[in-house]
Amino acid sequence: MKKVKISDAVVRRLPIYLRFLTELHNQKIKTVSSASLGQKLDMNPAQIRKDLAYFGEFGQKGVGYDVDFLIDKIRNILKLNQQIYVALVGAGNLGRALCNYNMYLKDNMKIVAVFDAGDSKIGERINDLIVQPMAELRQTIAERAIRIGIITVPADEAPTVAKQFADAGVEAILNFAPVKIRLPKEIRVHNADFTTELQSLAFYLDE
Amino acid sequence: MKKVKISDAVVRRLPIYLRFLTELHNQKIKTVSSASLGQKLDMNPAQIRKDLAYFGEFGQKGVGYDVDFLIDKIRNILKLNQQIYVALVGAGNLGRALCNYNMYLKDNMKIVAVFDAGDSKIGERINDLIVQPMAELRQTIAERAIRIGIITVPADEAPTVAKQFADAGVEAILNFAPVKIRLPKEIRVHNADFTTELQSLAFYLDE
Repeated sequence: MKKVKISDAVVRRLPIYLRFLTELHNQKIKTVSSASLGQKLDMNPAQIRKDLAYFGEFGQKGVGYDVDFLIDKIRNILKLNQQIYVALVGAGNLGRALCNYNMYLKDNMKIVAVFDAGDSKIGERINDLIVQPMAELRQTIAERAIRIGIITVPADEAPTVAKQFADAGVEAILNFAPVKIRLPKEIRVHNADFTTELQSLAFYLDE
Repeated sequence: MKKVKISDAVVRRLPIYLRFLTELHNQKIKTVSSASLGQKLDMNPAQIRKDLAYFGEFGQKGVGYDVDFLIDKIRNILKLNQQIYVALVGAGNLGRALCNYNMYLKDNMKIVAVFDAGDSKIGERINDLIVQPMAELRQTIAERAIRIGIITVPADEAPTVAKQFADAGVEAILNFAPVKIRLPKEIRVHNADFTTELQSLAFYLDE
């Protein structure tokens, strides 16, 4: 596939398309139009066609998109057909909770190492993982070919951990600390934010 | 404001608009066009105009939207100007982590009660909250006028907890358990999904 520049917003919409297409697949639905995708996701069909056109000409006029083909394409684009290893720093409540999510991580994404800066947690077992000291971060990331780092430390420690991840060679970071992380732009940083979910829920409360 | 039917997808986009508008406000920018909003969020400007038009005629042709006015409108629509109390069931790792996020919860959203089904955690302190038994759920929700429930129990317990929340009168639920919750449609259920964030991150990995 030709390498094209795809904007962040489009990349963020792809898992949403993928989730809905997978539902269609499970219902044994073979094709879908941009109009029905648009109706279901409440998006402008033109926007959907534009998003999907980044990846080549999938849709056929009057027939729509082939559901399975599109699922396959999006999975490829999101690299969900590769094995991707993830490391986590911060074996506190949230870190442990995310390690427990491991078994639900879709496809080939897996947390394979967990680290903590405090002495007290080193050697603790979280499911099949053992908490390692930060001193082992760089070597473990190299040895296990870990490509994504998750940060679940307090806000004041997060920038240091981000830098350590970057120096160790991870390519992308998912940051749960409520602080802005600044890194060279080759390293992708996403911030996870629980508050956005709560904000949109509030809409549905009665007056 | 006239009560209009606003689709879920639009409601989910409002916090994204709000976050970007708040950035503009902090940069002391007074007005923004749907074209620049579209460029920044990589959305079709027509889609943005359509979303915002649900709430009345805000934009002025050739001038754009008044940033502060729009912030105020969206905050009103999302009910961020009201005090909203939240209860959480499941004082495990994720539940504790979310209670720790309490201080970062924007505005007026606050977890004011935490419950657990197991005996062992009852009476434990999590910051300024004390873990209560499920037997107290209904009364506490009524007394404290709690409107949103968060579920952080294992998947097999989540449907029961959801029903208990519903019976106790919460209006909306944020479910972190990896299971589909079915409730009468007056009660809004959102599912929080860590995997979507990880999926879109994978895109940025090198080939």
